[in-house]
Amino acid sequence: MTDEFQRIAQLRTRFGQWTAPQVLVGIGDDAAVLHQPAANVVLSVDTAVDGVHFTRALASLSEIGARAFSAAISDLAAMGARPEAALSSLIVPAEIALEDFDALTRGIAEAAADYACPVVGGNLSSGRELSLTTTVIGAIAGAGMLRSGARPGDRIYVTGTLGDAALGLALSQRGATELGPEFVARWRAPRARIAEGLQLVGHASAAIDVSDGALQDLGHVCEASGFGAEIYAHALPLRARFAEVARELGRDPLELALFGGEDYELIYTLPESAQNHAIGTCIGRMLASSSSVRVLDEAGGILPLAGHGYRHFQG
Amino acid sequence: MTDEFQRIAQLRTRFGQWTAPQVLVGIGDDAAVLHQPAANVVLSVDTAVDGVHFTRALASLSEIGARAFSAAISDLAAMGARPEAALSSLIVPAEIALEDFDALTRGIAEAAADYACPVVGGNLSSGRELSLTTTVIGAIAGAGMLRSGARPGDRIYVTGTLGDAALGLALSQRGATELGPEFVARWRAPRARIAEGLQLVGHASAAIDVSDGALQDLGHVCEASGFGAEIYAHALPLRARFAEVARELGRDPLELALFGGEDYELIYTLPESAQNHAIGTCIGRMLASSSSVRVLDEAGGILPLAGHGYRHFQG
Repeated sequence: MTDEFQRIAQLRTRFGQWTAPQVLVGIGDDAAVLHQPAANVVLSVDTAVDGVHFTRALASLSEIGARAFSAAISDLAAMGARPEAALSSLIVPAEIALEDFDALTRGIAEAAADYACPVVGGNLSSGRELSLTTTVIGAIAGAGMLRSGARPGDRIYVTGTLGDAALGLALSQRGATELGPEFVARWRAPRARIAEGLQLVGHASAAIDVSDGALQDLGHVCEASGFGAEIYAHALPLRARFAEVARELGRDPLELALFGGEDYELIYTLPESAQNHAIGTCIGRMLASSSSVRVLDEAGGILPLAGHGYRHFQG
Repeated sequence: MTDEFQRIAQLRTRFGQWTAPQVLVGIGDDAAVLHQPAANVVLSVDTAVDGVHFTRALASLSEIGARAFSAAISDLAAMGARPEAALSSLIVPAEIALEDFDALTRGIAEAAADYACPVVGGNLSSGRELSLTTTVIGAIAGAGMLRSGARPGDRIYVTGTLGDAALGLALSQRGATELGPEFVARWRAPRARIAEGLQLVGHASAAIDVSDGALQDLGHVCEASGFGAEIYAHALPLRARFAEVARELGRDPLELALFGGEDYELIYTLPESAQNHAIGTCIGRMLASSSSVRVLDEAGGILPLAGHGYRHFQG
């Protein structure tokens, strides 16, 4: 990268001016230093790779930057942690021009500002394939909302609506964004549920964010907890026009809602005693019987899709 | 990646069994949780990309994994921080077989064990280009050894010897490893100076690790501190046989020692009053005059290489 020094200078300008009380040493030294936290430290890392997690044909570089940041910080939301700082490690092909690089880092910086989570360090490498690896650091009083805490009888909830991002992606891929701009916007600019996570921690028995699809992610909770779950298909929260637009594309709305990824909503379980802390929509309950997830229709019958195993439906 | 679940299972087995008192929640949930630290938190991230930072023709995948880990944790050494935890984010092409993937993660795990720094989380993505992004988290009492603290009159020291890794790489590229296996070993298996960093913190006025070459890295200290430096060419610590083997390859030993990267030694500055805390070799001193680095010969004359600007000699 011939203009590596220019790019690094751009990064320092973009991220180096941000001051926050928790930051003792920010960008520019061998490492960043945060003041001693008043709580436990939560750590997660997430990577977005060109051609795997995004494609430049369907989103701008600033959207790609912001989405990568949201996807990473969503793991803090799923734990119920408060964001403290982030590190952004970029592999950038030489053919990405300086102004495009600027758009990418602007997207990262805007998302970081939205979550009040300063970027305190990072790394810039050349490479053939664009990728963004974001490390997020949060604070939490206890251990947070783990996947393993769900118990039989707990109600299963989800924040917001399901399937919007998958529908938005499908519309973008078909070049039919005008059919549902609200879904395209949710796919392009997802929003991690940080505030909701902070409200739920201490009450929810388990939580996970919807990155790979509601059913698959709930499956992770079931596996970690050692119990099964049932989901009521008719209770799934769908955005207005969702079913109609999905059908216009020839897609089954229920499948999109159950298997569509990248919504970054929270799925969580709430014990009977904590129902007054519920946010969002109740979509099912935990079972004592097994560690599989079944989806019921309005009459209580088991829908065949879950019976086939949800992984087969993945992307 | 068709065997993604197998690879993730392999990662969990490799890194999930490790318990450490600072780890409350390890691999397997949405994020890791560390107990509230008794000190400030130090954060750094480093990426190694195939074809940029390593080539599979010259090192095994387990060596590549271990080197990437050492390069990342070296930033904690440069701050004087104690390693607490790491996150390992991998982009792995589908054509890397399961046993090769196993070798890669074994190398990471072995290095992590060497530094007593548990891998508490990570990420696995498919992609066309192999890369390893390592986040390291450390603990430190104050702000650590910054680049900006060097003052005129401070002596400049370096731990260990310089240029070994560059010579080892040159030998490997020529297929002449038998000429200097000790240098090849230092290039293939570098060792971050964690213990030395912990000894120096509180005494050294500034520090940096040698990743891009001694002169360039010292230049960063000078720039951040706002002062110049002079280096005594005859004082540079060279390993036995270094000059002889370098000349056999047609390389100038002095240039290799000054411009060769990836030694991961520490260059640090020590005020006059703290000389009893010195480790390693004194190679120069800080100047009041300017922020450039000059290299002096035994007679005190300025050697032309520094005069030309050290960046031109890079790579």
